[in-house]
Amino acid sequence: MLLEDLNWMGVEAYLKRDDRIVLVTGACEQHGYLSLLADIRAPMAIAQAACEKEGVLIAPPLPYGVSPYFVTYPGTVSVRPETFAAMVRDVIEGLVAQGFHRILVSNGHGGNAGILSAVLIEVSNAHPDTQMGFFEWWRHPKVIAAGEAAGLPLHHANWSENFTFTRVADVPDGDKAPPDIPRTASAATYRALLGDGSFGGPYHASDDVMARYFAAAVDAMVEELQRLKA
Amino acid sequence: MLLEDLNWMGVEAYLKRDDRIVLVTGACEQHGYLSLLADIRAPMAIAQAACEKEGVLIAPPLPYGVSPYFVTYPGTVSVRPETFAAMVRDVIEGLVAQGFHRILVSNGHGGNAGILSAVLIEVSNAHPDTQMGFFEWWRHPKVIAAGEAAGLPLHHANWSENFTFTRVADVPDGDKAPPDIPRTASAATYRALLGDGSFGGPYHASDDVMARYFAAAVDAMVEELQRLKA
Amino acid sequence: MLLEDLNWMGVEAYLKRDDRIVLVTGACEQHGYLSLLADIRAPMAIAQAACEKEGVLIAPPLPYGVSPYFVTYPGTVSVRPETFAAMVRDVIEGLVAQGFHRILVSNGHGGNAGILSAVLIEVSNAHPDTQMGFFEWWRHPKVIAAGEAAGLPLHHANWSENFTFTRVADVPDGDKAPPDIPRTASAATYRALLGDGSFGGPYHASDDVMARYFAAAVDAMVEELQRLKA
Amino acid sequence: MLLEDLNWMGVEAYLKRDDRIVLVTGACEQHGYLSLLADIRAPMAIAQAACEKEGVLIAPPLPYGVSPYFVTYPGTVSVRPETFAAMVRDVIEGLVAQGFHRILVSNGHGGNAGILSAVLIEVSNAHPDTQMGFFEWWRHPKVIAAGEAAGLPLHHANWSENFTFTRVADVPDGDKAPPDIPRTASAATYRALLGDGSFGGPYHASDDVMARYFAAAVDAMVEELQRLKA
Amino acid sequence: MLLEDLNWMGVEAYLKRDDRIVLVTGACEQHGYLSLLADIRAPMAIAQAACEKEGVLIAPPLPYGVSPYFVTYPGTVSVRPETFAAMVRDVIEGLVAQGFHRILVSNGHGGNAGILSAVLIEVSNAHPDTQMGFFEWWRHPKVIAAGEAAGLPLHHANWSENFTFTRVADVPDGDKAPPDIPRTASAATYRALLGDGSFGGPYHASDDVMARYFAAAVDAMVEELQRLKA
Amino acid sequence: MLLEDLNWMGVEAYLKRDDRIVLVTGACEQHGYLSLLADIRAPMAIAQAACEKEGVLIAPPLPYGVSPYFVTYPGTVSVRPETFAAMVRDVIEGLVAQGFHRILVSNGHGGNAGILSAVLIEVSNAHPDTQMGFFEWWRHPKVIAAGEAAGLPLHHANWSENFTFTRVADVPDGDKAPPDIPRTASAATYRALLGDGSFGGPYHASDDVMARYFAAAVDAMVEELQRLKA
Repeated sequence: MLLEDLNWMGVEAYLKRDDRIVLVTGACEQHGYLSLLADIRAPMAIAQAACEKEGVLIAPPLPYGVSPYFVTYPGTVSVRPETFAAMVRDVIEGLVAQGFHRILVSNGHGGNAGILSAVLIEVSNAHPDTQMGFFEWWRHPKVIAAGEAAGLPLHHANWSENFTFTRVADVPDGDKAPPDIPRTASAATYRALLGDGSFGGPYHASDDVMARYFAAAVDAMVEELQRLKA
Repeated sequence: MLLEDLNWMGVEAYLKRDDRIVLVTGACEQHGYLSLLADIRAPMAIAQAACEKEGVLIAPPLPYGVSPYFVTYPGTVSVRPETFAAMVRDVIEGLVAQGFHRILVSNGHGGNAGILSAVLIEVSNAHPDTQMGFFEWWRHPKVIAAGEAAGLPLHHANWSENFTFTRVADVPDGDKAPPDIPRTASAATYRALLGDGSFGGPYHASDDVMARYFAAAVDAMVEELQRLKA
Repeated sequence: MLLEDLNWMGVEAYLKRDDRIVLVTGACEQHGYLSLLADIRAPMAIAQAACEKEGVLIAPPLPYGVSPYFVTYPGTVSVRPETFAAMVRDVIEGLVAQGFHRILVSNGHGGNAGILSAVLIEVSNAHPDTQMGFFEWWRHPKVIAAGEAAGLPLHHANWSENFTFTRVADVPDGDKAPPDIPRTASAATYRALLGDGSFGGPYHASDDVMARYFAAAVDAMVEELQRLKA
Repeated sequence: MLLEDLNWMGVEAYLKRDDRIVLVTGACEQHGYLSLLADIRAPMAIAQAACEKEGVLIAPPLPYGVSPYFVTYPGTVSVRPETFAAMVRDVIEGLVAQGFHRILVSNGHGGNAGILSAVLIEVSNAHPDTQMGFFEWWRHPKVIAAGEAAGLPLHHANWSENFTFTRVADVPDGDKAPPDIPRTASAATYRALLGDGSFGGPYHASDDVMARYFAAAVDAMVEELQRLKA
Repeated sequence: MLLEDLNWMGVEAYLKRDDRIVLVTGACEQHGYLSLLADIRAPMAIAQAACEKEGVLIAPPLPYGVSPYFVTYPGTVSVRPETFAAMVRDVIEGLVAQGFHRILVSNGHGGNAGILSAVLIEVSNAHPDTQMGFFEWWRHPKVIAAGEAAGLPLHHANWSENFTFTRVADVPDGDKAPPDIPRTASAATYRALLGDGSFGGPYHASDDVMARYFAAAVDAMVEELQRLKA
Repeated sequence: MLLEDLNWMGVEAYLKRDDRIVLVTGACEQHGYLSLLADIRAPMAIAQAACEKEGVLIAPPLPYGVSPYFVTYPGTVSVRPETFAAMVRDVIEGLVAQGFHRILVSNGHGGNAGILSAVLIEVSNAHPDTQMGFFEWWRHPKVIAAGEAAGLPLHHANWSENFTFTRVADVPDGDKAPPDIPRTASAATYRALLGDGSFGGPYHASDDVMARYFAAAVDAMVEELQRLKA
């Protein structure tokens, strides 16, 4: 259930029965052959499936994140950590002020994680009646297990992000050898070493694998939503 | 054409033939009986129609804006002017760095306008090879003329924002008398004086009126996109 | 009554009988043939006349505003929106902490308006016992009516800002055709299209017209001061 | 010569013959029986006399400074160091961009000094063709000598700030014993220990002493203006 | 070799033969029975050993980091992400301006990692002639392997941080069962669930194990320093 | 007693008997022939001696300060005033939140003073139950008296900072004539006029003089610590 599908009277009614909300964060950055917004599309699809089951609201996602390593790839837009922290802080504080006292941030982009978790704890410290959850679908043990069950390695922009809803073009067959890139290389070095943008492994998996993989993510998120309620 | 429907190779190809892009900004705020995201949904619908004609890319929209007057209405999330300025600055600078040298910001929310136009000019002053455009569909003379042609007054959250794509519930019939609220009243005063959130006038218009009104907005935006190219 | 004409004992005494104060904001920017500080001088003159009648204090004005479009004109100094917001926030919060619970910001410069009104509402939301007013003399219906009664168009740096107290040199006779400049043009474009800096229309009006026009502004401000007290 | 007495054409002409400008900074804070704006009025009077002799322009002064120790005195408004630094930085950068390459900041308030000098040097480091001067009239050796010649101690809000242009009420006769206040005491402690706001010594001096004292300040500033030109 | 053991002439000489420098970042936060500065002491000890071998300079460390989860434990001081980012940015930019074009940040505290790596890449993007390295000793594969070789689990404030130079009191014998704490729990929840502050496992290991573990960290860092030089 | 020599249980115990703590601030900047960290080493040595007597805790020092005038000297790293203010504010607020209600900031670097004292007072105003002290050893009357007793002038990087613990190389014999440098000169001018970095006078004094000078500083600081307790 998307907040944007409600008017304020609808939110007022919702807050009488629940105080949970999901905020999706991600990035507008290269994902090889996949959508530049894969880091929003994947967690949003998972959130919609999970929140459907739990009857939980989803706030509008934050589409721009911290991606300085990829700005040499057309279409990547990165914001500074200070800016991202300020935006997240204002939005989370705003949700708390509205009465959303249990907030699950579902983050689709690794570069945001350190800032997000710090700001969430700071807000939570300032408001003892709140509870903040943090969910990253692709790092959840259940989801990793699903990947391992398929015998496929998990890397940025490989099969593990290649869903019907993130696919915008054909992807190559075959495996890519994972390149070795220092974590704080410049964006120029990243592009020189990374080529098409995938971090390696197969570019796609069978529909069946993807369905089980997605289902694991939804299950994991449902669990987080329930834990938040407890 | 949405940026998110492309991968980076697609953007690379696009930048060889065009350097325009549209960024939609709005707000997550009460709109009476209409969607809390009306200020994104309306300019996005207009942008998609106009950009389809002009073959121009649309970046992911910024869903949160400056709406301190409405935070007493459930679902309204407002960010501070400083935060909004920093986010817009980073995103616009990021687009310029990517080669988008002609950027049209289509702003759907009045509270953002002063900050947006200042930041756009500052970025433009710093990059002499760029050209920034600013479009607010509901303030465009052509659109105002279309409203006047229908004999209907234009107010926040009345018929003039009530499209099929912003409607999430039934709206009342009849006219609301426009309340008189000081511009810098607190959010508590706004809610006390504004009631259901509409600034008055009729809550809906005929499909025919809405179609002509929408068409005027699309025409106006096409014109802006062409002027930017010239 | 200027705050600067008092010592702290004088303010202490004032606060026992009134809690209103006026803060004038403006810009240091080109005004064609007129003073670079026209946006301070005009609202200060109006404020002094209006506050004289109402016995209200006037705080020292903020002389620098957000004017990125004019930095190509010598003498124009523009501050970033983030800086202006921080300064206004600190000053308004400081006044509230002093016991000035009803503050009328009289803004002389359009480029400041969006930031000012947002910050004023945020401060008001944080302090439920305060009331913020916002006055822009040149946009007040009574003042516009006075201009229309004289049959003269209102534009930046034309007759409508040409008072004895803003005039620093001779101005041309005759009418200037208003140029058409995109709102977010760069400062270089502004100067190329705007020439002498006036936005068009006659450069001066008769003393009689100016007196009636000024009187309308004072009346309008007195009304705002009274409304704030009510 | 005040910038505000010119239009942009006047500044353009000025910049062809000189690139110096004076920026006065001060505070809106208690000065005992004297004007709350004494820290602006004194350096402005001195600047006007000195700049008259040297034919140098004076920019509009910044009336609010960093005065957290006095906020318990009615009429004192203090801004945060971060805000003051940002405002000074933007204004100085703006003046440099306009072609004012030799800027003399005349600071009337001790609490601003550390931030001002740091920002001035940072701007100067970034623009090798500029020269920044920093003048604090009351700390200049010539001015201190003039005070000592009169056999009178120099303290905040005593005779040494009591000019015709800072006096707004009668001041007591006699000497006040200087209180001993820890530098970083809270504003509550300051008020408890400081009483009427003067830091002690006589409240006034003879017109003759004040004239010689003022003349020393003007001489000192003329010297700084000439050194800047060299 | 510590920067603080040199004067500026010494640094000038150093920069003629090398342009590498190490910056250690950490936290002032609870480490169970260990020193509150364990996150500085461990990476500093490792850096001193590694830099000794490579003849590389070490800048003064940043002792405060982002630790909002532990502020309920006495002695923990956490700074906001925005503040940490600004400080790191200024220091790294300052080092680059000094001619240190290859900088290895050795981060001792997980909560800093996301911000640090983002800022390092942003600085590197802005200065194409620089190379930034990022080293976290406890996450390095060689160090993890050394821990696994000893058959001991790695957790915050357990044996793996218990060196002679981080030990300030006796530690318990025996194993602690690792608690399960949500990542974004509030500091109150952290303290309630975490008790003595250790995340579990044995509190100490034999001197022999610690020596091999430390040696692995030094080896890993030497390798990073050499890679940076290449 | 250093905070870093304790674990959190140790701080918890300390806070039951005392709520004082010392925070040393300084700079990483040229000191002529002396250590680049002289502004930390000197106040730390004094603090350790004084706090030993008083049984007071010392927090980890902030090694980077505001030193824009010296960035042309290798090894000098300066942070912006805004950054320094934010860092100090976060650390002091963090200490207050931990229960350290009487904080003595011992500042070793003149360039930090204005910002530090402002932030300390602001924090103190916000927390009426706290008391902030500010100590600068080299400006304390007792220490100046000790210097004068030795008949030696006090200047940056001369004998008065040349202790065994700040000395890292031989220093010249003889006296240096103090250069005359405008306070807000650029770093390039500073280096041109200042040469080896000392502000003049003798480069060293006898061990006996240094011992008495150091003892005066320790005495002065003990007094400040006691005054804070009272």
